[in-house]
Amino acid sequence: MFKNILIIGFGMIGCSIAKSVQKQKNPPQIIALDKDPHKLRLRIKKSGLNKIISTGSITFADDSFYNVDLIIICTPILQYKKIFEKIERSIDNRRIIVTDVGSTKLNIEKLYLNGGYTFRFVPSHPIAGIEKSGLEHGSDNLFQNRYNIICPIKNSNKADINKISNFWKLLSMKIEFMSAKQHDNVMSLTSHLPHLISYSLVLTALKKENSLKSKLVKFSAGGFRDFTRVAGSDPEMWRDIFLSNNKEIQKLTNKFIKELQIFSKNLDSKHSIKLLQKLKKTKKVRERIVKARQAGKFIPND
Amino acid sequence: MFKNILIIGFGMIGCSIAKSVQKQKNPPQIIALDKDPHKLRLRIKKSGLNKIISTGSITFADDSFYNVDLIIICTPILQYKKIFEKIERSIDNRRIIVTDVGSTKLNIEKLYLNGGYTFRFVPSHPIAGIEKSGLEHGSDNLFQNRYNIICPIKNSNKADINKISNFWKLLSMKIEFMSAKQHDNVMSLTSHLPHLISYSLVLTALKKENSLKSKLVKFSAGGFRDFTRVAGSDPEMWRDIFLSNNKEIQKLTNKFIKELQIFSKNLDSKHSIKLLQKLKKTKKVRERIVKARQAGKFIPND
Repeated sequence: MFKNILIIGFGMIGCSIAKSVQKQKNPPQIIALDKDPHKLRLRIKKSGLNKIISTGSITFADDSFYNVDLIIICTPILQYKKIFEKIERSIDNRRIIVTDVGSTKLNIEKLYLNGGYTFRFVPSHPIAGIEKSGLEHGSDNLFQNRYNIICPIKNSNKADINKISNFWKLLSMKIEFMSAKQHDNVMSLTSHLPHLISYSLVLTALKKENSLKSKLVKFSAGGFRDFTRVAGSDPEMWRDIFLSNNKEIQKLTNKFIKELQIFSKNLDSKHSIKLLQKLKKTKKVRERIVKARQAGKFIPND
Repeated sequence: MFKNILIIGFGMIGCSIAKSVQKQKNPPQIIALDKDPHKLRLRIKKSGLNKIISTGSITFADDSFYNVDLIIICTPILQYKKIFEKIERSIDNRRIIVTDVGSTKLNIEKLYLNGGYTFRFVPSHPIAGIEKSGLEHGSDNLFQNRYNIICPIKNSNKADINKISNFWKLLSMKIEFMSAKQHDNVMSLTSHLPHLISYSLVLTALKKENSLKSKLVKFSAGGFRDFTRVAGSDPEMWRDIFLSNNKEIQKLTNKFIKELQIFSKNLDSKHSIKLLQKLKKTKKVRERIVKARQAGKFIPND
């Protein structure tokens, strides 16, 4: 397995990887890079990770690669280009495998292929959704029992795919393989559209806030608060996701709007039976998610 | 305070009231009515509430009112009419105060006023959202630190309003007063629209399910699962809410659709800065809800 891991972008996900990795027997050495290395050092110290991590700036020098055998890119997606270039220029390509945790895959694949890069790359996406950002929210069990989608590109070699796959498995993740296109299609429904909806609902609410005043927050427990959780996600990360998968998201948003219009139009007693059937049908989807142990747990009173 | 409480409709909310009430010193006697009294008895026995509760059918006989000084209606809203009629016909109106927990208020007020009923009525709405239904999910701390909106009607008298208000306060609820109209306006945003959105998203997803197969459930942790929680609410209860507040909900749905369209249209790099600003703005709403301790707590891994 890997002995020296370089994590580029040390936010919630990067830190969770480090914490999870360090629970292993004979854990690998980890180097963490982030925008502001001074801040990073202070925060790592606080989080109890300081003993086994070296740190550095995201504008890393070549010596960051010393002995590294795995690079995990954990930055917002629009920063990949400059990171790819740096990796391509700086390293002994044959020694290091590169992976990432980005939430869109097709544009990353295109970036890599169109850029003519030659470093060893196996894109991945751990589906471990919490809305909190920043390394202070990193957790050593974030990945437990969650899925990780690996989207090999045409020149990822099999041994590398296996190694990356095993890396995530050691973090108790379940592995699925998909093409980048299929990944983006699935994610547009299970993640990107839900986020777009949440943001739009909060924006709708903000427009009504002058008349509602404190009531919006006070009475959020009736449903609204669930949406604000999703809408509380990291803004930069989500701007990049939206821009990276915009076509797929726009197509799906239109379908969703049609569904909303039908639902809303049928809210009268004439359609009472059909309405009840619809609501029963949707309840079953929730039951399936709970059964698959992907629901998480919600405690109404904190 | 009240000595004998009749709870009509003994699901999750009704049972939570009973459990919360029984933590008090010298708790009142409770009579629980539900559709199927036999099933109700069995379930109450299982839930550990059997010692201090009498049970009966929802098509209750007059003797259910023996000594009762408070009636709490906890059924879906479209059942209120027959319950109102029964109460009006059967009881010594002057002895008993009636309240409810319904999620819409204007149509209930209209039902009462247009029906010419004379029993003492103080409508209320405890905002304690969980998606689970059925008395087996009743909890003695559901109401803790949550808001209860009381919407007095023109002939609710002050002493009765105080008594109902104190009743909920003893269950650790915070009281707010609103007109029925204002209540429905606020709730259409903080609860009814979020539910309509959730149902519509799940329906959109179900249409894509043939091509997605198991992927919808597997990868729901990226955001979709949050919506299914809300969409997992009790179907009959929600059909009634949708039908009872349809005009307000339809108006708001249209506003929301406009917001979606704007958001979706602007998903390109030209609008990158504006997009980031929007996402930052919505994040702040989440922070306010957390600060107000109305966020609940979400544990990603169950």
